[in-house]
Amino acid sequence: MDLPHGARSADAVGRNRFSVILSHPGNHENVGLVARAMKNTGFRDLRIVGLESLDDGARRTAVHAEGILGKARFFPDLAGATASCRLVLAATARARNTFTVLPFPEIVEAVLRFPRKTRVGLLFGNERTGLTSEELCAANYVFTIPQACRQPSYNLASAVLLTLFALFNHGPDPGPAAGRPLPAAKPLQDDCAGVVLRKLEAAGFIHGANRAHVTEMVRGLFGRMALTEKDRRFLTAVFSQGTKKET
Amino acid sequence: MDLPHGARSADAVGRNRFSVILSHPGNHENVGLVARAMKNTGFRDLRIVGLESLDDGARRTAVHAEGILGKARFFPDLAGATASCRLVLAATARARNTFTVLPFPEIVEAVLRFPRKTRVGLLFGNERTGLTSEELCAANYVFTIPQACRQPSYNLASAVLLTLFALFNHGPDPGPAAGRPLPAAKPLQDDCAGVVLRKLEAAGFIHGANRAHVTEMVRGLFGRMALTEKDRRFLTAVFSQGTKKET
Repeated sequence: MDLPHGARSADAVGRNRFSVILSHPGNHENVGLVARAMKNTGFRDLRIVGLESLDDGARRTAVHAEGILGKARFFPDLAGATASCRLVLAATARARNTFTVLPFPEIVEAVLRFPRKTRVGLLFGNERTGLTSEELCAANYVFTIPQACRQPSYNLASAVLLTLFALFNHGPDPGPAAGRPLPAAKPLQDDCAGVVLRKLEAAGFIHGANRAHVTEMVRGLFGRMALTEKDRRFLTAVFSQGTKKET
Repeated sequence: MDLPHGARSADAVGRNRFSVILSHPGNHENVGLVARAMKNTGFRDLRIVGLESLDDGARRTAVHAEGILGKARFFPDLAGATASCRLVLAATARARNTFTVLPFPEIVEAVLRFPRKTRVGLLFGNERTGLTSEELCAANYVFTIPQACRQPSYNLASAVLLTLFALFNHGPDPGPAAGRPLPAAKPLQDDCAGVVLRKLEAAGFIHGANRAHVTEMVRGLFGRMALTEKDRRFLTAVFSQGTKKET
C-alpha cells in the first residue's frame, strides 16, 4: 500500500476485522461517500441491510473506492449482517433512556478491551430516521458522536468518517488488554438474551404495557456484557433449568 | 444553544476566533457541506476566496446551516481573507519538501500555544488542485490529515469536518500556555518576510533558478515563527538597516 506523508503505517485496531453496516440507507450517493470514507481510512468490509444492489449514484461518489462497493454484501435483515460479528457498536444521534451511551472517545478502548480477533460491526441507520430501537437492541454498545447543536445532525457519510477516523487515527495498541475474553458470536449472545426474555415473560415480569421498555433494557444490559461462550452456556443452562422447573 | 446528549458544553479552543477559509472552491454543493460541518462542530465564520456569491447548490446541501452561508464573506484574494488573522493553518494532501508539516494531532496544541484571542484562519484549497505553493506560503503552519492510502484524498467537506472535529472535540484547555505571546497581524508577518526576501535578493542569494524554492523555504520558516509585533519590529529594523548600508 502506498503511504503518503501523514499516513499511518501502524494499524492499532486491526482494521480488517471491522465491518461497516448501513441499515436501510435511503440515498445511494451517501453509500458511495461511505465507501470513500472507508477507503480513506483503510477499512474494507461494507454490509448493507435492506437494499439488493447499488445504482450509479453510489459509483459516482465513491471516487477510487469502487472496489469497496463491488465487494459490498447485501442482507435482507440486520441479523444476517451481524451474524459473523462478536461485537456490534451502533451510532445514534439521539439519547435513549434505556441504553447506556458510550462516550465517543471510548469506542476505541471498548474495542481494544477484547481480543484482537474479535470481529466488530459498526452500525449506522437510515439518514432520516436513524436506527430503530429494535436495531439498537442488536448492538453491544451504543455511541453518540459529539456535536455542537441539536440540528443538523451529522450526515451519514460524516458519521461514518468520524467513527472510522477515530479508530484509524488511534495511537499504538497498548498491548493485549489485561482483559476480557473473546465474546461469543453475536447471534448466540442474542439467543441468550432471548432465553432470558422468554423466562421473564413466563414469570409475568413482561406484559403488554412494559414489553418494549423491558426488552430494550435487557437487550441493552446483555449488549454491554458482551457474553463469552462460557457466560452464554452458563446463563442458558440456568434459565433453561428455571423454565423446566416452572413447567 | 441546545445541547443534545453527546454535545460538549466546554469550548476548549474558543471556536469564535476561528475562520474557515476556502480558496477557489470548485463546487458550490461542497461549500454547503462545509457549512453543515461547521454548524455540527460549532464554528461560524466562513470566508471564500475567488467566488462572489453562492448558488442554490450550496443552500441545498447546507441543511440547517444556511445562516453560516448567509454570513459568508467573499474575497478576491487570499491576502484579504487572512488580513484579520494572526495565525493561519493550511491543509494539504501532498507533502512538500519546503514546508515542515505539522502532525495532525498537534494542530490543536499549535493553536493553544498562543493567547486565547489569537484569531486563527483554517485554509483549505480547491477540491482538485489543493493549495498552490503561493497559498501555502501564506500559512504559519501546514498540516496533513492522516489517510490510509494515496488515493482518493479526503474530499473538501471531509477535510474540513475532520479538522473542525479535532478542534471541537479537544479536551479542556490545559490553561494559559507557559507560552507564546500574541502573533502580529498576519499581513505584518508577511510584510516582514517580504523585507527579508528582498534583502536576500539584493544580496544575490535569490536568483532566477532558486527563487521559488528559497521563497517557499523562507515563507515556511517565517510561518512557523509566528512573529510577534516585537519580533517584527526587530527584524524589519535589522534588515532595513542592512539594506541601507548596502545602498
